Order: sequence, then structure tokens, then C-alpha cells
Amino acid sequence: MADGRDTTGPGRVGASPAPVEFFFDFISPFGYFASLLIDDLAARHGRTVDWTSMLVGVSVMKVMGMPPIVDLPMKGDYIVRDALRYARQHGVPYERLSTLGGSRPLAAGRAFAWAKTLDLQAAKQLASFLYQSYFVECRDIGAQSVVCQCLVRCGFDMGDYEHAQSQNIPAQLLAGNVKASLAKNVFGSPYFIVDGEPFFGVEKMHVLDDWLRTGGW
Amino acid sequence: MADGRDTTGPGRVGASPAPVEFFFDFISPFGYFASLLIDDLAARHGRTVDWTSMLVGVSVMKVMGMPPIVDLPMKGDYIVRDALRYARQHGVPYERLSTLGGSRPLAAGRAFAWAKTLDLQAAKQLASFLYQSYFVECRDIGAQSVVCQCLVRCGFDMGDYEHAQSQNIPAQLLAGNVKASLAKNVFGSPYFIVDGEPFFGVEKMHVLDDWLRTGGW
Repeated sequence: MADGRDTTGPGRVGASPAPVEFFFDFISPFGYFASLLIDDLAARHGRTVDWTSMLVGVSVMKVMGMPPIVDLPMKGDYIVRDALRYARQHGVPYERLSTLGGSRPLAAGRAFAWAKTLDLQAAKQLASFLYQSYFVECRDIGAQSVVCQCLVRCGFDMGDYEHAQSQNIPAQLLAGNVKASLAKNVFGSPYFIVDGEPFFGVEKMHVLDDWLRTGGW
Repeated sequence: MADGRDTTGPGRVGASPAPVEFFFDFISPFGYFASLLIDDLAARHGRTVDWTSMLVGVSVMKVMGMPPIVDLPMKGDYIVRDALRYARQHGVPYERLSTLGGSRPLAAGRAFAWAKTLDLQAAKQLASFLYQSYFVECRDIGAQSVVCQCLVRCGFDMGDYEHAQSQNIPAQLLAGNVKASLAKNVFGSPYFIVDGEPFFGVEKMHVLDDWLRTGGW
């Protein structure tokens, strides 16, 4: 096993290796699952994680020209079943049924993008609360009220957030994240990049683990 | 570890558990990778494997309405890179570059479907030779001459094959396989079904392994 200090792999910048880039959408079940694992995985190899909220709707639908995955014939049903199966296998709380319909991910993604500019640890806590609100408590994270409750629980100041919103800052931050993620060919959630090497999907995390441990192949 | 005799899991029919259903396309890199692993994986749990050639082009393009995966913006390049990375990691011979263009999978799929009706073990050997011809020797397995060479190497009688072809039997067998696979929602390659439970992709094989070992969850 790794001793938590990979001093031989690539991507070292000065004294510290580059962080693992983690891209996720708040309405992605597999983004949620990955969010529970990625920090520990990276830490085992002496890496931090740079979390970036993006919008799968833009990458999948607008750039790739596909319908939402859950609307695809055959594959849509499989993905729904696979998410429930993953949650059962790994003991992850997951109560949201596909019959419930989805939320729009904009409000959550924007709040996270803004929160991250202030306090990364609190922003990660925000992501956890947002995912929990959506996938466990089955709330509508497209509603500002739900997002604001999560922000308050993490200690963010509502006056600051409303001021930022009045200047359209959270929306601009998320739009910038989406644009940057597309420039890196991020086409789904979760998506990871380590030293330029891309890994898509929660089932690739063990390969990402191998890559970090060995320095790549 | 499993002792090779899972006597508690579902799917037992009389004295023997149901075989693992394995669906694959001959121009699918991940179908090739899976073909190298699935028999041993199933055998560890006392299962045999029912191999069925299908056509991803029909499921992905005609039923799902998507372009070929390798033609998708962003994801296409990722899949090509991922296949090469998988091959390097696992020491799988893989010489076919995406710049070479693809073969039509019909001739190979038909030959396999026919061969399987005569001799399952020889048909599996045929699949191995076809995959090797395509992904290692970089030959055009859309050409009858290449397919026939593989059939001969596996001991199939060319007179029998030509006679079957004159009656359109291999084509009908493959068409039947494709139809049956679509009825089971098989939308990609490799795809596995065990006791009705579906698993898509080579990276899901460890979950399939867990499922067979535990009897499901």
C-alpha cells in the first residue's frame, strides 16, 4: 500500500504534487458517490483535490448532441438501476427515486463555485450538504431556499451571497467552470484529471488509484 | 476467495447455476478485453459462460440514436485513449490504432454465431483468433478471407460454412442474436447478464465478480 507520500510520480510542482482535478454535477448520482471517496483516495498518495462544479447538461447535451443519459433508450434504465445497486453495495444513503424527477443543477453549482472562492473546506462541506439534500432528503436543489439553507449550515454569510448574486458573480463563476471543463474535454460526472491524464466515472477510481500509486504507465 | 462452487446464489437450474450471458461485438476493444477474462471469472463461481456476438452499431446507433461512440466529441478521444491505457496496464496485446479505421463487424459476428451452433469451445477459439486478427494483427475482419482463415485454424470445415452461407444461415443467426440482445436491453459491448442482473463494461467486471461471490445484494 502507499505510504501517503508519493515522491516519485509526475506532476510535482516544487515541493507539492499537483492536485487531482475533480469535476462533478450536483444532480449526478455517480458524482455524489465519487465525492464521498476522492479526498481520501488522493490523500493516500499525498495529493489534494481541486473540486469544480460543472454542468453535464451542457457537455452531454449541447456539445455531444446527446439526450440526457437517463432518457436514452435501454441505457437510461441501466444507469438508474446501477446507481441504486452501487448505493446498496457500498452502504451509501440514497433515497431519490428516478420517478421523482430531477432538479435543475444551476443554483447548487453556482453556490458551490462562489463558496469555493472563499473557503475550500467549507465549500466541500456545502457540496456534501447539497448532495445529501438531493439524493437522501429528496429536496429540490434547484430552489434557492434549499441552497441557501445549505450555505448557512456551512457558515457562509447570506448577506455576502446575496450581494454576490446581485452582481451575477456565482453565475459567472459556474459559467467559467463549465467553459474551462469543456476546454479539458470533461464530458461527464464524475471526471478526474491527474497530471493531464483523464479518468471518467466512479468505476475508474480504482484505476486512478493505480495511476497515482505507480506514477502512471 | 470463492471455492468455485457457489451453492447458495440464485439462478440454479437443477444441479447447475445458469451461465453468465456475455454479449460482445468484434470491433469493440473492451469486448476484446472482456473476452480474455470472463470464462475464468465465471468459473471461479462455478458458472459457465454463454457467448453471444451482437452489433453495437445497431444498439447504439439505431436504437439509441447516438453516433458511433468513437465519433462523439470529447468522449470519442477518451475511449480510444482509455483502451490503449487498459491494454498497457494489463499487458494485453493491442496494436490497432484508431487512425487505421474500423472493420465492419458483420462477417466476424456471423461466423461466430454459426460456429457456436456446432462447437462452443471451437467457437470461443474462433473469437480469440478474430479479436487477435483485428486488434493485434490489424487485419480487416470485415473481409471474408480473414474470417475464413480463422475458421480453418479452429478446425471448421469450409465446405460446411459455404453451404451454410448459401442458405443465409450465419446472417440469420447473427440477426437473431442482435434481436434477442436488444430484447434484453443490451446496449453496449461488453455486456453481461447473470440471473437477470445486467452489468455493462469491462470496468464492471469486478462488480459482477462481487455479485457472483455474494449472490447479489
